[in-house]
Amino acid sequence: MSVKFLRGAHRKMAENYSIYEGRELITYKDGEKNTARHPIVKEAPLTIILNGEELATLVCSPHSFELLAIGFLVSEGILQNHDDLKDIACRPEQGVVWVDTTDGATRIDGFLRRNFASCCGKGRPSLPFLNDYKQIQPTAHMTRFTVKELLGWATLLDEEAKTFKLTGGVHEAALAYREGFVVGYEDIGRHNALDRILGYTFLNNIDTSDKAIILSSRISSEMLAKVARIGAPVVVSRAALTCLSIDLAEQLGITLVGFARDNGLNVYTHPGRIME
Amino acid sequence: MSVKFLRGAHRKMAENYSIYEGRELITYKDGEKNTARHPIVKEAPLTIILNGEELATLVCSPHSFELLAIGFLVSEGILQNHDDLKDIACRPEQGVVWVDTTDGATRIDGFLRRNFASCCGKGRPSLPFLNDYKQIQPTAHMTRFTVKELLGWATLLDEEAKTFKLTGGVHEAALAYREGFVVGYEDIGRHNALDRILGYTFLNNIDTSDKAIILSSRISSEMLAKVARIGAPVVVSRAALTCLSIDLAEQLGITLVGFARDNGLNVYTHPGRIME
Repeated sequence: MSVKFLRGAHRKMAENYSIYEGRELITYKDGEKNTARHPIVKEAPLTIILNGEELATLVCSPHSFELLAIGFLVSEGILQNHDDLKDIACRPEQGVVWVDTTDGATRIDGFLRRNFASCCGKGRPSLPFLNDYKQIQPTAHMTRFTVKELLGWATLLDEEAKTFKLTGGVHEAALAYREGFVVGYEDIGRHNALDRILGYTFLNNIDTSDKAIILSSRISSEMLAKVARIGAPVVVSRAALTCLSIDLAEQLGITLVGFARDNGLNVYTHPGRIME
Repeated sequence: MSVKFLRGAHRKMAENYSIYEGRELITYKDGEKNTARHPIVKEAPLTIILNGEELATLVCSPHSFELLAIGFLVSEGILQNHDDLKDIACRPEQGVVWVDTTDGATRIDGFLRRNFASCCGKGRPSLPFLNDYKQIQPTAHMTRFTVKELLGWATLLDEEAKTFKLTGGVHEAALAYREGFVVGYEDIGRHNALDRILGYTFLNNIDTSDKAIILSSRISSEMLAKVARIGAPVVVSRAALTCLSIDLAEQLGITLVGFARDNGLNVYTHPGRIME
């Protein structure tokens, strides 16, 4: 099967930036002691300043900070329409991104209320976050994908995971379309890798209704909600997922696919989009 | 090699609670379509109310909520001495834990300032979190461990990872001592699994200066800081780690061991505690 990055795509995985560096260490293997120098993933802070007020500091792989900041704000529901974004500035060496929105509002109160003070024990304990996610519209697009396409994308993601193979320390996320990826990112955090996809689709006004999200990492309810934010109809993970992500995918109309590897995959919700 | 849980130890891994349940799905494997029912990890919210004020909501595996809440507060530096804890109550079915401290202070301001408003771009970009972690005392205990001990614990952790083998959806963390584990936990979040160890050592006044932390998951700077909070001199991961965790381990006096598997391991900092 011939799968590859689409022509002109932003190919950000394992090239054009250094997200690891060599470090000295001592190895013990089968009783033998040695010194070595191995590639280790870098970990850097990124502070997001929204309309002049510090909103959050993430820990991430040091690359494409603007995309990550925008993706984080999309993921949090702070940026919803392209017109919401007024200005963006970045000082990568300081790990700071300034984002100004057209409404100029600081969101620290609402942001914190949702993330840190929403009592999930009240109401519906089995689906605690659905109230937080009620501004997300269920995905209705009935674009269909073949099993062969999904497996091809999962294989491609593994082939492109060059930094993971070197370091064991990153996750990958990609936006898949037809014979390849529109864009793909690596990050020490699985949330960050996916947030970068959100940032890319937001900044470039990408229609995701005919595309799939492909992940190397596990899918939790929060990961599923990120997919729903940008309206992608299908999300595929090479790894496991949680009961709550299944419940959320069911309600938000998303086709949830897990364990896509070794020429097999599992479909947990909305199987109508999958063709044999 | 004979390794096992210590007599009388709290053995919380893969028994005494249900952190997964069966879910229906469709499988495609080698071109064949079937229906199946697989075990999927549960994901539940836990809201921590500190001195009457909602502090945070975590997403976690639904078990031992009190330990997780206490461990989270220890990890955040809110609980430091055993006398700091006045009272604790839990309603597991609602996912809420109430914790009262002797000083009665709500900490939401300081908590948020540190987690969300500490601008890491200022000062020392290479070690941005050290200012936040300066209340943590470097570990000075020179307890030594043999390579055979560390490898035995890493193997034991893998053997005990029964929920992971069933579901692919959890991480494990254990506190190791002599021929076994004092305690071990599984959780959908690697931070939570380790926080439960912190909760256990805090509530039971466990001296960790002669013990090691064993993890299935990657070690980031935040994971390393949790280990430092309880003064454990050695942390061992079966997986990778980051440059920042190496830098932090170097400064906090912790022996950092990674990739402990297949009869080998790597020592990144303070190798004086490791004996052949």
